[in-house]
Amino acid sequence: MTSAPANPKSSPTAFASGPVQTISVDAMGGDKGPAPVVAGIARFLKRNPQAHVLLHGDEAELAPLVAKRKIGDNVTIRHAEGVVTMTDKPAQVMRHGKGTSMWSAIEAVRGGEASVCVSCGNTGALMAVSMMRLRKAEGVNRPAIACLWPSRNPGGFNIMLDVGADIRADQDDLLTFALMGASYARNGLGLDRPRVGLLNVGTEEHKGRAELKLAHDMIADAAPKGEFDYVGFVEGGDIPSAKVDVIVTDGFTGNVALKTGEGTANIIGDLLKEAFKKTPLSRIAALLAYTSLQRLKKRIDPRRVNGGVFLGLNGTVVKSHGSADATGVGSAVYLAWRLAQSGFSDRLAARIAQANAALEDDPTEAAQ
Amino acid sequence: MTSAPANPKSSPTAFASGPVQTISVDAMGGDKGPAPVVAGIARFLKRNPQAHVLLHGDEAELAPLVAKRKIGDNVTIRHAEGVVTMTDKPAQVMRHGKGTSMWSAIEAVRGGEASVCVSCGNTGALMAVSMMRLRKAEGVNRPAIACLWPSRNPGGFNIMLDVGADIRADQDDLLTFALMGASYARNGLGLDRPRVGLLNVGTEEHKGRAELKLAHDMIADAAPKGEFDYVGFVEGGDIPSAKVDVIVTDGFTGNVALKTGEGTANIIGDLLKEAFKKTPLSRIAALLAYTSLQRLKKRIDPRRVNGGVFLGLNGTVVKSHGSADATGVGSAVYLAWRLAQSGFSDRLAARIAQANAALEDDPTEAAQ
Repeated sequence: MTSAPANPKSSPTAFASGPVQTISVDAMGGDKGPAPVVAGIARFLKRNPQAHVLLHGDEAELAPLVAKRKIGDNVTIRHAEGVVTMTDKPAQVMRHGKGTSMWSAIEAVRGGEASVCVSCGNTGALMAVSMMRLRKAEGVNRPAIACLWPSRNPGGFNIMLDVGADIRADQDDLLTFALMGASYARNGLGLDRPRVGLLNVGTEEHKGRAELKLAHDMIADAAPKGEFDYVGFVEGGDIPSAKVDVIVTDGFTGNVALKTGEGTANIIGDLLKEAFKKTPLSRIAALLAYTSLQRLKKRIDPRRVNGGVFLGLNGTVVKSHGSADATGVGSAVYLAWRLAQSGFSDRLAARIAQANAALEDDPTEAAQ
Repeated sequence: MTSAPANPKSSPTAFASGPVQTISVDAMGGDKGPAPVVAGIARFLKRNPQAHVLLHGDEAELAPLVAKRKIGDNVTIRHAEGVVTMTDKPAQVMRHGKGTSMWSAIEAVRGGEASVCVSCGNTGALMAVSMMRLRKAEGVNRPAIACLWPSRNPGGFNIMLDVGADIRADQDDLLTFALMGASYARNGLGLDRPRVGLLNVGTEEHKGRAELKLAHDMIADAAPKGEFDYVGFVEGGDIPSAKVDVIVTDGFTGNVALKTGEGTANIIGDLLKEAFKKTPLSRIAALLAYTSLQRLKKRIDPRRVNGGVFLGLNGTVVKSHGSADATGVGSAVYLAWRLAQSGFSDRLAARIAQANAALEDDPTEAAQ
């Protein structure tokens, strides 16, 4: 294990994205400190020994953790004094956050040392610093956070966006979300031709808010060139269904839906546990069904779907749950690595440029 | 069993609300026809033999069903030729729906023969006809649909509104929803001092849309006189929690949240069934845990929470699921009966009037 030079510019080529993908990871700022982050990275590296991790945080704390996990060959520590806490206001972090591990982790993507950044820290601050340092990609007005949602699809997951980068989205933003979501589904989930749906309160064309009706037509028009299928309006009940891969919505609705789904899964899980403890017979039943129930638990485990992805910036940022454990961090780093390998950021930028060019070619369409 | 006179005005006193509560039920328009509706009424009457039901629909179809269930003493059939189908457009039904069972069922509330109406029919049409015939209650700009949500609270349910009467709500509407939801919780769930929360993407005061921040202050101000506790902003994950009894939101967000919750519960239920079928051991486990699992199933059974309530009209309308079976219809009729017994409509009107008077007394507050 070696410590990185203080100036990140001094040896950028060593970590440049290429055949050896470098993931930039913010080790601090999670609810549980750096230990589960390093454990998660170790878990990831065991299966992907060709990857490289640039780890940002307090070197005195991180070095022993990295040594303990014996992952020094694949990990470079980049010392950063400061830590962004969960209660720090985004505006504050934008002004004074320069010495923090979060800032440093994002800066590594900006400087081209890594192609993707992962952090368990404060979502608002991470979004604010990412926006400020990486800047919005050309043609993107509103970036979005995309999440994975356990579904009935063969791959086990659907994608929903925006789940909280912003609290609003107009028809142009929703079209951009559709393009970004489709691109993420291709590169992150390996779907050749993702099916995109627009979240509404009914599937009939006349339903919903004005911007949804406009977006409905715009997304349908963009589908052939964007190489996705547009399935039209979908409802809340369709989010975990097999009739769609990507669900497009504004950040307010998406955030409420995400937390409602998690809350529902949690209460059912708790009630199920209580049911199994109720009688001696049900306690025996719980033992007999143990393996099957563990399999189910794993299938809908929120830690496995850990990793909201910020889309629409010059570089990709993966946000892991603040309370993520080693499994959660491991899956977030794996997702980041997969996106890095596919050259996701560049592909996405190309898609957006293509769609905007198409709109400019046909001004009547753009004005609709 | 006797058939009611053709002119509903001819003997209104016989069914007037009083010690014997009359519930007006639309027998037609559900996905499964009138049979489960009559079966549900029979189930309800078994436990509440003092109630009276005014049943609207095709007499030739209904008379044998009522006779079969031996509930003729408590049921009066009001013949109506037409049926509103699930695909009928609300505007169409408003113009041409006069001879339908749905129209007739609402008309009975309008004429004072019954205090509450129940229908399994087309939600949009039911709302449109209810609005047109019953009219909005004084002081209510936007009526709302309230639903029951399985929760960790001792009573087992929380209330959420609006879940789809309209697709928007401004700060004044959200205040009205808070008052109506609190009144419903008092009269429908028997809570003396309901706790009301406003759905947002975070619990911090600075978060969310402009109208939410305004509504936040207005609801807080109205709480003491409205005899409810305002708990502030709540998130999607709090909907089934024990920290709140009434969740206030606009109809778009509420509808998406409701369907997302149902969709999540459904996929978990299906995966659970699959898990129990996976191995011989898990099949035995399913048998051993049968009673406990049935208890859980009953607890979160959507049929038991069947019955969205239209609030803010001159009269109460309970909307049952289109696909409700006898259990579902029975629970919707019971909810209607409970609200009728408590004199809910009158109490609610008094609350709204009181709140509006308070706003008028203090014009600075109203203008905020």
